[in-house]
Amino acid sequence: MTHQATERQIDAVVERVKEIGLKIELSRGEDRTLVGVIGSNAYAYREAFSHLPGIKEIIPITKPFKLASREFRAADTVVDVGGVPVGGANDVVVMAGPCSVEGEEMLIETARHVAARGARMLRGGAFKPRTSPYSFQGLGESGLKMLALAREETGLRVVSEVVTPADVELCARYVDVLQVGTRNMQNYALLQEVGRVGKPVLLKRGMSSTVEEWLLAAEYVLSQGNRDVMLCERGIRTFEVATRFTLDLNVIPLARELTHLPVVVDPSQATGKWSLVRPMALAAVAAGAHGLLVEVHPHPDEALSDGAQSLDFAAFDRMMDDLHRLAAAMAQVPAK
Amino acid sequence: MTHQATERQIDAVVERVKEIGLKIELSRGEDRTLVGVIGSNAYAYREAFSHLPGIKEIIPITKPFKLASREFRAADTVVDVGGVPVGGANDVVVMAGPCSVEGEEMLIETARHVAARGARMLRGGAFKPRTSPYSFQGLGESGLKMLALAREETGLRVVSEVVTPADVELCARYVDVLQVGTRNMQNYALLQEVGRVGKPVLLKRGMSSTVEEWLLAAEYVLSQGNRDVMLCERGIRTFEVATRFTLDLNVIPLARELTHLPVVVDPSQATGKWSLVRPMALAAVAAGAHGLLVEVHPHPDEALSDGAQSLDFAAFDRMMDDLHRLAAAMAQVPAK
Amino acid sequence: MTHQATERQIDAVVERVKEIGLKIELSRGEDRTLVGVIGSNAYAYREAFSHLPGIKEIIPITKPFKLASREFRAADTVVDVGGVPVGGANDVVVMAGPCSVEGEEMLIETARHVAARGARMLRGGAFKPRTSPYSFQGLGESGLKMLALAREETGLRVVSEVVTPADVELCARYVDVLQVGTRNMQNYALLQEVGRVGKPVLLKRGMSSTVEEWLLAAEYVLSQGNRDVMLCERGIRTFEVATRFTLDLNVIPLARELTHLPVVVDPSQATGKWSLVRPMALAAVAAGAHGLLVEVHPHPDEALSDGAQSLDFAAFDRMMDDLHRLAAAMAQVPAK
Amino acid sequence: MTHQATERQIDAVVERVKEIGLKIELSRGEDRTLVGVIGSNAYAYREAFSHLPGIKEIIPITKPFKLASREFRAADTVVDVGGVPVGGANDVVVMAGPCSVEGEEMLIETARHVAARGARMLRGGAFKPRTSPYSFQGLGESGLKMLALAREETGLRVVSEVVTPADVELCARYVDVLQVGTRNMQNYALLQEVGRVGKPVLLKRGMSSTVEEWLLAAEYVLSQGNRDVMLCERGIRTFEVATRFTLDLNVIPLARELTHLPVVVDPSQATGKWSLVRPMALAAVAAGAHGLLVEVHPHPDEALSDGAQSLDFAAFDRMMDDLHRLAAAMAQVPAK
Repeated sequence: MTHQATERQIDAVVERVKEIGLKIELSRGEDRTLVGVIGSNAYAYREAFSHLPGIKEIIPITKPFKLASREFRAADTVVDVGGVPVGGANDVVVMAGPCSVEGEEMLIETARHVAARGARMLRGGAFKPRTSPYSFQGLGESGLKMLALAREETGLRVVSEVVTPADVELCARYVDVLQVGTRNMQNYALLQEVGRVGKPVLLKRGMSSTVEEWLLAAEYVLSQGNRDVMLCERGIRTFEVATRFTLDLNVIPLARELTHLPVVVDPSQATGKWSLVRPMALAAVAAGAHGLLVEVHPHPDEALSDGAQSLDFAAFDRMMDDLHRLAAAMAQVPAK
Repeated sequence: MTHQATERQIDAVVERVKEIGLKIELSRGEDRTLVGVIGSNAYAYREAFSHLPGIKEIIPITKPFKLASREFRAADTVVDVGGVPVGGANDVVVMAGPCSVEGEEMLIETARHVAARGARMLRGGAFKPRTSPYSFQGLGESGLKMLALAREETGLRVVSEVVTPADVELCARYVDVLQVGTRNMQNYALLQEVGRVGKPVLLKRGMSSTVEEWLLAAEYVLSQGNRDVMLCERGIRTFEVATRFTLDLNVIPLARELTHLPVVVDPSQATGKWSLVRPMALAAVAAGAHGLLVEVHPHPDEALSDGAQSLDFAAFDRMMDDLHRLAAAMAQVPAK
Repeated sequence: MTHQATERQIDAVVERVKEIGLKIELSRGEDRTLVGVIGSNAYAYREAFSHLPGIKEIIPITKPFKLASREFRAADTVVDVGGVPVGGANDVVVMAGPCSVEGEEMLIETARHVAARGARMLRGGAFKPRTSPYSFQGLGESGLKMLALAREETGLRVVSEVVTPADVELCARYVDVLQVGTRNMQNYALLQEVGRVGKPVLLKRGMSSTVEEWLLAAEYVLSQGNRDVMLCERGIRTFEVATRFTLDLNVIPLARELTHLPVVVDPSQATGKWSLVRPMALAAVAAGAHGLLVEVHPHPDEALSDGAQSLDFAAFDRMMDDLHRLAAAMAQVPAK
Repeated sequence: MTHQATERQIDAVVERVKEIGLKIELSRGEDRTLVGVIGSNAYAYREAFSHLPGIKEIIPITKPFKLASREFRAADTVVDVGGVPVGGANDVVVMAGPCSVEGEEMLIETARHVAARGARMLRGGAFKPRTSPYSFQGLGESGLKMLALAREETGLRVVSEVVTPADVELCARYVDVLQVGTRNMQNYALLQEVGRVGKPVLLKRGMSSTVEEWLLAAEYVLSQGNRDVMLCERGIRTFEVATRFTLDLNVIPLARELTHLPVVVDPSQATGKWSLVRPMALAAVAAGAHGLLVEVHPHPDEALSDGAQSLDFAAFDRMMDDLHRLAAAMAQVPAK
């Protein structure tokens, strides 16, 4: 309450809280009175008070997410992707492949290469959310079929983006992990739909979403019954224009404190420049990432989307060599 | 090309451009060679070159949007919303109402009040995209029915948000303007769907979208055949936490240079604080806005969402008085 | 305190607070204990607790600035600039002139023109903080002399930037208002130095400073005894690249709630584009600004700095005409 | 030039460029004419053209910094700090110590501890730039004396911040590295002053500065003759509020491409939370940092500034153990 709040104003706030059915903790200082509001959904009701006279500020004390929180579940969630575990103390999982599925041949060639060097999953977009309606929008279902074929050929699990609720069932038929992209992190109809199918979800952080909003987006999926959510940091939008986005690695250790869900990092989208991908992949693993999502293309100069940020095979090999060395060193890092 | 680019590297770039079918303008300086790439879709192909050796940087010269651009259409678009014109030299249109439709009585009461004071449209959310799955999500179709009823009672046109492609047809049956919210500005399936129906669209700017991305989102709608798009600035996400968002009024005169589409401003969402709404509404109109989207609630302290930023009736009346005075003064401002 | 905090942890925090000499308000809820810390400088000590076990979060309740706050002084400060009042209910003061002082002739020509059209102050940089060491850095003292001469010729008061403590005395000899630029808003040695001289100060907001940091910077000046501080919003740095900065007009009504100091707006720096200056100047006044700082140059295409954002005389005249019309309308707006 | 630019407009631009003494490269396309402007200081003159009729956009092609660029100097700069080499292929240098120098005893205790665990430099603020004038401002010269004493006791080199040009000589007498803080990155008088003394400089990135602005700030120092500049990333300001700043590790590999100067990272300031410091220190080294600046305090809960982000001795030891393991693994990473 403000400094000048009257007894009547304080009483009115208390009454309003009780009407709604929430509990109250009143703290009267010499200078100022604090009204603590307690209840399982108190946060959602804050707007019901905000206009009452005498209120200075409404400050949330508890976190608004639940199922995603460490308080709810202390042990790390390990997501089982068709036998490949992601999270906890398991090996870092590399998910590699082209930005877009462009054709069968290039996809199989890429899948074989990355599988041979240690990747466990194949990434590739069949439905592409593009900023311009005139850019290449992906091959759709025929792209999904190519991904399924590549899985058969290589044993790699497949991760691909779904962009609208109507496509969820179709995508789930072909892929092992449903990716929700940065532009759709707050597409709640989509989040609820992927929450209803029995497939692991890779939830990219919105390019201007706070960690709290990201975990609330995860909460949308979790609250529908799907507990297999992997978070994916992919760079946030800042004033810096020298890189495509700013990779926010602070959120890896932070998310690992706040949530039990695994955290994956996409250094390709986050930097927009292939020469920065290897160092940032190493940094992500050093910071505690459980997985990496990396764009690889046999001929990046011919890619239909995001060629500038794709590794060619030689650059991918070098990254994998360095990662193995780093992972071996980090394995000796005793867990917290 | 880089300083050190060889003749062979330059030739390879030229070849690649020709293969794709684009035209070329070569400029050879003493120190540096520039390769100009010309074609109706050149921007979309930039990734096809970015990996070639010898390239220093790829710089877009022309704007990537077309139907939305002033070059394409010099005269202001005036969107006809059931007889109410928005855009061009027409009067500023005020769209007012509660954040969410909470019940018939409060909606009708609000509609009558704002209509009496000069508003031409009623706003109100039936489908609410909420950050938390535990917040009030709107009344859905029954909310739409209340809006339609309020239209009958008052003659106000109705604007309401649609959040997913599957709801577009349903919403279009009840409302006069389909609003696409900030979290869905890059939900391309939704943009395409609203592009296919014959209803005006109010396209809110993504909270971290550049003006270019906003106009490209409009392009998604326009390219489906729906030319009745109104842009709506509603605040962007910045480092400043004292207000909910930062209202970016620079974009009003800027958008009016770049595009022929009308520009509306939402000072309620942009400030998050009712006491800032009136001054920012006035500022928006002074900067050249064609319309305002304002939250009004008969009892803001009881609102189920966003009460803190809603005007009560007295505050709305004061805003309308000031707006009339300002509009009269601005009417004497000779057009550019 | 955290949910799991023990009695001993709570006691330890209470003890630590008492040691420092601050007062305490303890609020014990069923689920959680809040420790309220009260004292004139409590904010500065927050770090002394932040490491104690059992603490969940430290939340500032009161604002950290004092002399700048409305609580400290309810009435608007009116800064007297050699007889020209800025702030309160006084007329909007236009400060116009070239970005840099480039020569006597152009300065006098500009001063005469803007004075004839209603400007009350002349702006012009003699010491320029330039991002590149290779850009034009200003004429220094000879520039200040030209400004003083222009004042004699026209009666305009003079505002010019000071960039380092050692120059404060020199600048104060020639100018009527000492401007502290955006890059120096947290140059505390400079703030303290301008706080010690008896000249009004125009304090530009740091391009990435919150309103709170801005008012704390003002507090540095005020706490040295200089009460004549004018705040100046000049655009903040955001992700948007279509304009040079994002003009944050939200802060005008917000600052007017938080502080008694006058608020000036610089639409030239904030937009970086002369065609946006007039609409944004109008918007600033509509939002409640007490003054405007505008770049005017007789031949913007020949300016040594920031020509793209300077108005030529014709554009300035048009802005002044519109401002007069707007001001007349706003004068009828009853004060809050 | 714009699409509609006339021959006369193009000629006028060409004339203007020649008048200034710059060279020209004209490229006439079917649709559009490009005017290339070439000269050692062309960038600084851009404003001289920007107002000419017919110009669409001015696009910088070359980077505006010179002495700091890889083009100017291909080999890594190794800064010699009293015998401790920073940069190139040398071992990662850890600079550790308290945020502020608070007293002799705690400083010596900290210095001995960090030296014993492998740190090579001692950090500690004697002059503190604090956001509030009411916060602890540092011990000044007596703090510098304590740092010099700690150097004698431990052999550690000393790094400390200088906040204003008048203090540069004084600080240079006591310390081995002059730190320029984030709030002063564009305090050009200070940059020039530290450029004139013969001491290495640690230049922190401005909290909202682009990489280009950071390198231009370095250019200010370099152009005064001081070539011993170390860059320090310390987190940038973004919309994310869960951490104090967003550590931008993208800039490590990026800066190493653009410049020959060593790059240091400060994970303490960047996260604001001690539990995130160790993972982010590891990430920085994995990304290629040449040094680390880390806050360590014997009793973080009693620190007068920034206690929440300081490591205690046990946490520092754990970080050093992990760093040694990581460095050993990375040493096997073949250089690019």
